[in-house]
Amino acid sequence: MSHPFFVCHGPISVDKILELLDIKVDIASKFEITDIKDLSNAEQNSLTFLHSNRYKEIAKSTKASYCLTTNLLKDFLPKTCKPIIVENVLMATSIITSKIYPNSIEDTFDVKVKKIEEVNLKNNVKYGKNVLVGENVDIGSDCLIGHNTIIEKNVKIGNNCKIGSNTVIRNSFIKDNVSILDNCVIGKKGFGFFPKNSKNLRYPHIGIVIINENCEIGCGATIDRGSMSNTEIGKNTFLDNQVHIAHNVKIGENTIIAGQVGIAGSSIIGKNVRIGGQAGISGHLKIGDNVDIAGGSGVIKDIPNNTKVMGYPAKNIREFLRENK
Amino acid sequence: MSHPFFVCHGPISVDKILELLDIKVDIASKFEITDIKDLSNAEQNSLTFLHSNRYKEIAKSTKASYCLTTNLLKDFLPKTCKPIIVENVLMATSIITSKIYPNSIEDTFDVKVKKIEEVNLKNNVKYGKNVLVGENVDIGSDCLIGHNTIIEKNVKIGNNCKIGSNTVIRNSFIKDNVSILDNCVIGKKGFGFFPKNSKNLRYPHIGIVIINENCEIGCGATIDRGSMSNTEIGKNTFLDNQVHIAHNVKIGENTIIAGQVGIAGSSIIGKNVRIGGQAGISGHLKIGDNVDIAGGSGVIKDIPNNTKVMGYPAKNIREFLRENK
Amino acid sequence: MSHPFFVCHGPISVDKILELLDIKVDIASKFEITDIKDLSNAEQNSLTFLHSNRYKEIAKSTKASYCLTTNLLKDFLPKTCKPIIVENVLMATSIITSKIYPNSIEDTFDVKVKKIEEVNLKNNVKYGKNVLVGENVDIGSDCLIGHNTIIEKNVKIGNNCKIGSNTVIRNSFIKDNVSILDNCVIGKKGFGFFPKNSKNLRYPHIGIVIINENCEIGCGATIDRGSMSNTEIGKNTFLDNQVHIAHNVKIGENTIIAGQVGIAGSSIIGKNVRIGGQAGISGHLKIGDNVDIAGGSGVIKDIPNNTKVMGYPAKNIREFLRENK
Repeated sequence: MSHPFFVCHGPISVDKILELLDIKVDIASKFEITDIKDLSNAEQNSLTFLHSNRYKEIAKSTKASYCLTTNLLKDFLPKTCKPIIVENVLMATSIITSKIYPNSIEDTFDVKVKKIEEVNLKNNVKYGKNVLVGENVDIGSDCLIGHNTIIEKNVKIGNNCKIGSNTVIRNSFIKDNVSILDNCVIGKKGFGFFPKNSKNLRYPHIGIVIINENCEIGCGATIDRGSMSNTEIGKNTFLDNQVHIAHNVKIGENTIIAGQVGIAGSSIIGKNVRIGGQAGISGHLKIGDNVDIAGGSGVIKDIPNNTKVMGYPAKNIREFLRENK
Repeated sequence: MSHPFFVCHGPISVDKILELLDIKVDIASKFEITDIKDLSNAEQNSLTFLHSNRYKEIAKSTKASYCLTTNLLKDFLPKTCKPIIVENVLMATSIITSKIYPNSIEDTFDVKVKKIEEVNLKNNVKYGKNVLVGENVDIGSDCLIGHNTIIEKNVKIGNNCKIGSNTVIRNSFIKDNVSILDNCVIGKKGFGFFPKNSKNLRYPHIGIVIINENCEIGCGATIDRGSMSNTEIGKNTFLDNQVHIAHNVKIGENTIIAGQVGIAGSSIIGKNVRIGGQAGISGHLKIGDNVDIAGGSGVIKDIPNNTKVMGYPAKNIREFLRENK
Repeated sequence: MSHPFFVCHGPISVDKILELLDIKVDIASKFEITDIKDLSNAEQNSLTFLHSNRYKEIAKSTKASYCLTTNLLKDFLPKTCKPIIVENVLMATSIITSKIYPNSIEDTFDVKVKKIEEVNLKNNVKYGKNVLVGENVDIGSDCLIGHNTIIEKNVKIGNNCKIGSNTVIRNSFIKDNVSILDNCVIGKKGFGFFPKNSKNLRYPHIGIVIINENCEIGCGATIDRGSMSNTEIGKNTFLDNQVHIAHNVKIGENTIIAGQVGIAGSSIIGKNVRIGGQAGISGHLKIGDNVDIAGGSGVIKDIPNNTKVMGYPAKNIREFLRENK
């Protein structure tokens, strides 16, 4: 499947990739790479990347034809996927992604937006004053869009959605019956870059934000789009005010997230999870289904299904309360 | 007193209430309920609700004629108040409130706002560009209202108030000499609902936000209106940036709340309280007068007057510092 | 150097200062004070202030001619600087500063802004809809300014800067190649006042915000300007979403600050520092260079260079993890 929003500037030859990464080889390969994707979404003729043994199981079944990886990790790849050995996998991935998707690195405001009155809407939309709409925007029927809200380019909104005032949305799929309240920013690039003195190198973000049916997103929330995969919020999940969801996070269905919670990049949250106010979840974690995280907790490791945790670092709630009488 | 903002669609007969709650009785009652209110504000002929023995003292003196409650709690009610026994008091209250106040469930943007230039203001107000004003809005003299700010329906602002830019206010009483800075959202419905797989059931919010004289509300603050009672901030209380105040919270006079603090629903904070940055206070707590809560603390139980606390869970500050040298 | 933004209403005679502070002396002094500044920036003929022995080393070399201080601290001053002994140094400083800089106490919206189309821009600027620009604003070449953004008075923006949508900036120097994303508030007065029942006394804020080259400021960030000194962010420092930086904070170069971090007033953060999400740093602290602060930590004391800390209160990360297995 081609990318829904960012234009793929592929194909690109393996030769060219090696040249961009400053890798010298004896025999040139004219093989044409069509796209770059993560391990599970990559198709034949795609390039993918493997940077941690955390992903070794997924690596085994990737369909990609080539993979940016290290000497230590290359043996997890199937025979159909040829390794390209690099020193820093994420930086190499960033360099190639920036080449294939040159528009995914920096978010500047959408200069092509028009006043909504000047846009030819297919459906019945009720809108406030000073609403702006960019290119490649599709709004379903019976939607409400509040004052001063900016729907920048690459947004698909389902039916019966309610968007508040002063909100900015870009690069996102909003499914049916979703409410997004005031002052939110949805779909901006994530906080991803390679630190470099003098000038940090920004990471491209070709993922999007997907908010599934019946969700509610509170005021002042920020939900960043993914870098190589999407940021996704499951059906009927409710977020309170001032919540921050970083890039690549996936949240399951029927989850409840109270005010000022922050979820760092690439963490996966199960379904029927309850997260109390101001709790924080570190990056790259897996939180199971039916988990309760007490308000104010700091979660720094995976949490299995059906567990209640509290504290910093978060531990079993009974243990925490016994130790902190 | 009738509701200042939401239109009461009462009276409603006791019969009808029982029918809505799916309760079968032998003898029908044509008694007409005029309104639904919390225990202390309910008047004769009103319906109220009692869902926890935490409120048993207030229950004893309620003036309501009927009360939604459980078999275990019904004996706390005075003889003048007849119990209606239900399984889930809050859900029953929600169902009846939604019937009496059908417009208090979801906040959609105010479609009836006008540009402030087109509104007939009684008083001297200095305003910025692109200011919008809804119906049932009253602004006192010598007020300032910043650019892009939206005063939606049901707002009463006193004299000499300063409202910043990009701020949204609805369903609120702002008293004299109050400053509300930029990018705030004041008076939206709280984060209250009954979790239900497939589609959560939102709780009605018929409370308002009251901000008393001489308060200051920092940038990016969110103050939600109450569900059955009001959210109220006492005189001369100052909130720093990015503070979140949930529904039904009451804060006393002369209190100081530093940046990024969050106060969960229905907690009561005393006067002359100091709350350090990023501290969190759980819901349904009572924090006394002259309390100091150190920055970053997580408060999970009531705190008596004149106490200094720190830590998570917050405890006496001397004890905390001794244990954490 | 005269103040770049706030108009100095000096000179003011020492006589007048003593009168304002209600200090009676036998012999009047007609000496003219030109300005009020902090210990290190004060020049000859200026007034300065010394309120804590934390600043005794800086006090020894101040060039100020007069200093508001206490009997206990006055001996740290050089002979060229005469003490004016007061009970409450900060309140006296506030009173005199309010007199010399009367426009630095309250931030009301800038009534003199114009639509950017009506402003005579010297350079090539690409801007969105509904952008407002105040007086004394200078924008460099090749800048982008997003929709609904308000550049209020006293802002200097360098070349090649990218400002998002719905952002408010005032009293700030933004250097070259800086990105400020959506919904930020930069340069408002800090949360500084003297608590007084009935009506708090606001502290003047004559400092500005300086954001140096190549910085990125995430969505929903608030950066307050300084009271007597500036708030400053070093080159190539990146802030994620919903970060709060209080007045007078200084942050070094190449520092990385993750989402929802809060830094309280007057703290100094070194260079190459990494601060994890939701961490909080108390006021008036010194965090060294190359420090790592784990997400969720609460820092309440100074941290030396090259240290990794975690926890609340933050301590050596190895110690914290050993104690919290």
